[in-house]
Amino acid sequence: MAKVRLALAQTNPVVGAISNNLADCLEWVKQAHNQGADIILFGEMSATGYPIEDLATRPGFVQQAEAAIDAFAKQLQKCGLGEMHVVIGHPALAATEDQSHWAIANNCASVLNGGSVVARYAKHHLPNYGVFDEFRVFVPGDKSCTFEVNGIRCSILICEDIWQDGGPVARVASDKTDLTLVLNGSPFELEKQSTRLELVSGLAQSTNSAVAYVNLVGGQDDLVFDGNSLLVDATGALRALGAAFQTGLQIADIATGGLIENIDAENVGQPLQNTNTDALESVWNCLTLGLADYVRKNGFKSVVLGLSGGIDSAVCATIAADALGADSVYGVSLPSVYSSDHSKSDAFDLAERLGAHIRTEAIKDIVAVTENQLGLTDLSAENLQARVRGLILMALSNKEGHLTLTTGNKTELAVGYSTIYGDSVGGFAPIKDVPKTMVWALAEWRNAKARAAGLIEPIPQNSITKPPSAELRPGQVDQDSLPPYEQLDALLALYIDGRQTREQIIAAGFAADVVDKIASLVSMSEWKRRQGAIGPKISGMSFGRDRRMPITNKFR
Amino acid sequence: MAKVRLALAQTNPVVGAISNNLADCLEWVKQAHNQGADIILFGEMSATGYPIEDLATRPGFVQQAEAAIDAFAKQLQKCGLGEMHVVIGHPALAATEDQSHWAIANNCASVLNGGSVVARYAKHHLPNYGVFDEFRVFVPGDKSCTFEVNGIRCSILICEDIWQDGGPVARVASDKTDLTLVLNGSPFELEKQSTRLELVSGLAQSTNSAVAYVNLVGGQDDLVFDGNSLLVDATGALRALGAAFQTGLQIADIATGGLIENIDAENVGQPLQNTNTDALESVWNCLTLGLADYVRKNGFKSVVLGLSGGIDSAVCATIAADALGADSVYGVSLPSVYSSDHSKSDAFDLAERLGAHIRTEAIKDIVAVTENQLGLTDLSAENLQARVRGLILMALSNKEGHLTLTTGNKTELAVGYSTIYGDSVGGFAPIKDVPKTMVWALAEWRNAKARAAGLIEPIPQNSITKPPSAELRPGQVDQDSLPPYEQLDALLALYIDGRQTREQIIAAGFAADVVDKIASLVSMSEWKRRQGAIGPKISGMSFGRDRRMPITNKFR
Repeated sequence: MAKVRLALAQTNPVVGAISNNLADCLEWVKQAHNQGADIILFGEMSATGYPIEDLATRPGFVQQAEAAIDAFAKQLQKCGLGEMHVVIGHPALAATEDQSHWAIANNCASVLNGGSVVARYAKHHLPNYGVFDEFRVFVPGDKSCTFEVNGIRCSILICEDIWQDGGPVARVASDKTDLTLVLNGSPFELEKQSTRLELVSGLAQSTNSAVAYVNLVGGQDDLVFDGNSLLVDATGALRALGAAFQTGLQIADIATGGLIENIDAENVGQPLQNTNTDALESVWNCLTLGLADYVRKNGFKSVVLGLSGGIDSAVCATIAADALGADSVYGVSLPSVYSSDHSKSDAFDLAERLGAHIRTEAIKDIVAVTENQLGLTDLSAENLQARVRGLILMALSNKEGHLTLTTGNKTELAVGYSTIYGDSVGGFAPIKDVPKTMVWALAEWRNAKARAAGLIEPIPQNSITKPPSAELRPGQVDQDSLPPYEQLDALLALYIDGRQTREQIIAAGFAADVVDKIASLVSMSEWKRRQGAIGPKISGMSFGRDRRMPITNKFR
Repeated sequence: MAKVRLALAQTNPVVGAISNNLADCLEWVKQAHNQGADIILFGEMSATGYPIEDLATRPGFVQQAEAAIDAFAKQLQKCGLGEMHVVIGHPALAATEDQSHWAIANNCASVLNGGSVVARYAKHHLPNYGVFDEFRVFVPGDKSCTFEVNGIRCSILICEDIWQDGGPVARVASDKTDLTLVLNGSPFELEKQSTRLELVSGLAQSTNSAVAYVNLVGGQDDLVFDGNSLLVDATGALRALGAAFQTGLQIADIATGGLIENIDAENVGQPLQNTNTDALESVWNCLTLGLADYVRKNGFKSVVLGLSGGIDSAVCATIAADALGADSVYGVSLPSVYSSDHSKSDAFDLAERLGAHIRTEAIKDIVAVTENQLGLTDLSAENLQARVRGLILMALSNKEGHLTLTTGNKTELAVGYSTIYGDSVGGFAPIKDVPKTMVWALAEWRNAKARAAGLIEPIPQNSITKPPSAELRPGQVDQDSLPPYEQLDALLALYIDGRQTREQIIAAGFAADVVDKIASLVSMSEWKRRQGAIGPKISGMSFGRDRRMPITNKFR
């Protein structure tokens, strides 16, 4: 029976850093070669990073990527790796432009062997929903691609191809494929992994082939690729799972008919997540990797953030400490005349628990001189306090070179409970897609993890239990102007994620006046969200590219 | 010979304000009826406003729009207008969802007659490039739509349908159409009008029908619809032109075979623009309408902006005065210790010429207390000055209820020559798509217009002629750190609008080190642009939805 040794490579490319990405791929090819692999499969657009957005419409970029792939094939040959079949993703100029003359490239996978490109597949189904704009920037392919290695017939598909019917995917079976190779750039989303397994398993059964599903790893702006690659045999059974949120290599032998033998068990990842605790762990890992990669890939070394003693900044600081090391985290306590004692003590307690830097910059002098000069009272004076905090954080960022983090959660962003150019300042928003109730759950989970390991709990209990407050006036708490967070998050999930109508939400048990008020707040803060920092997507409907609403909009 | 009287109605709908939009349409139907019209044609999505973006994916919104159209048909009948054929644009639930289950609606035009919808057309070609995401939010139609009025055969098409080949447009001719009705939501862009005429004229000739091309009017976020509707006879000759940037009605009689007679000349717009002065006038009208509609549609009454004595703020203030009346414009002179005398005197001179409000808020006290507290010097101290200005403008906005305008031009935004949360604060950026060299040209044009009318030139000559400077340190001018603006704008046009490669730009005569430096600045300021205010698009490649680049991006 014919047999081939396959390596699945989870890499973490940087968008646009083509030569660095290929240098990294070369190391993985060498390692796979040392383990006797005949084929190595990388993720979608592994050469250029993903998503490349409108870079795909720039001829200079596409030409550079294509030239780099040709050179990489030659380099492999020169390094004595020419006999391997290397399957790698990249853009390539399409044979024809699309009708609008906007898209010029295909989203491709090339097979490199013997010093050149021996086969190339162009993605057929181009996702154009959610965060994806691929119909905008790519020309769809219309051909299947099959090649043979050691008597094993291999077919290539790319990501969305297996989420839609028709096209080349339908031809995989008739091509008598033993092994279907799927290159993916599939961002993390809660509860997505079980859907992936279902799809991959169904594909294996319907095509009677083994399916190797390789996903990228790493943060790219607001997306985090979670790895979690899958290897499924022709019966649809899961045989190996790539590590979550980590680069790595897996090796397996594939025989005629999609049978899988001899899996290198050392490299098999953790089991599929399915409990609530596992979900929180996945979210935490997503947020830390998203932040770590934004910092590293954009050349920062450290972050600065305001520490209010509240739960949002405490969770953000802990994510930053886990992502970068506590020594790279610079907290600033920014008390006003309305700040409670615990807001200061809880902030210092947090920093001590983490081992992060902390200093105090009182805002009262700057606030006083501004308030007096402009004669500010009420809301304009409240916003001023938040903006002076933003001013100080940005000044420290400029002076010391830190990336500023903004600590707003998804619930606040939804209803506009924040001050633009105040607490919203910063280049990255670690918890922007995390609802307030989940922020608390993450804090509990992270503390429990520390407890279980016999370590200090990073987040002060007081920050978890005290009623949330912006402390912009005496005695203020969030619930003065918002419904309880459990109720608010449930309503927002129906309205934003579920796109439900007013009538449906009322039927689910919410009071009509609350529904109307919240829907109105969501619309009225669209302009603030539009100017907000990016942050990691964890839901099916994040603010940003997932949800594109007009600012000028009278629909409620 | 059969004959029908057609009314072309240019309306200015507000997105989401369905009942208000339809109440406005009713007035136009009455007026057309009074002039004996048999058919009235409105623009694309005239019932809901356009573009509705992801509102199209919300079942509640689409259902509301459909119900409103049915009710409107009944209302027309009740008002004694039932015998007219009213052709109006709106979304409607599609027979089938698209594969991704994201888009649920068609982009439709309905024919209302006798109290009900008698025909409906669904847009076939969905633009998904530039600022458009229609393939994301709509299901494409696949049928043609022809109906007869007084023996005249009418076919319907929508906007992008006439910009692409194939589909229902190809069937217009075989349907023996006398009159092709095209509903459009076509945003203003320099040099676009001649392209429209060419397309419409070609369509008339190839289908042997008269073509009525009705465009919307008005600002919607970053888009401005410029009207400029077209009526072309079956020979391809332009017979009537709608007003630019104004609502209005035109009446004409269409006979069998696409002959046009009896045009109501009073309502015929100005001639097609083709000189450079006309281009500047169009841009000015686009910018004033864009700002006026953003202010009005979002419930503001006035604007506040910093007046530095420089050309950008002078042009923005003049646009605002033209858009809203000078009494709605609140200028603030925000001098620092580095501000020149002329920066103050030119700002006051401008306000006096305009008749706008002006006050002085010196920044030195707030800057001093902050600088001292944080020990700021150099760049962090420069940015602080800009941020204190932003702080003051936002405080005045909150206190007095003005919309804050940010006055950055396209050149500055391209290279990141601005301070985020400083001079960039504001909800609207009137000249964000205007290159610096065009800002000067607009100033000259606006002054010349005033001179020609015997009025005071609004913009001080000194603001036009002095070398541009941010005045953040003694003796600073923009050209210390940037190439001359003529050169910079020419380079940016090739790089950004033209998507040219490094090699092409160097071949066009630019030094390699300048090209590399500018390309690097453009990439490195992507994160700032992402958090920038919206402003009217005038070019084929505006910053915003037109150009979607990753922030994390190593490609230069």
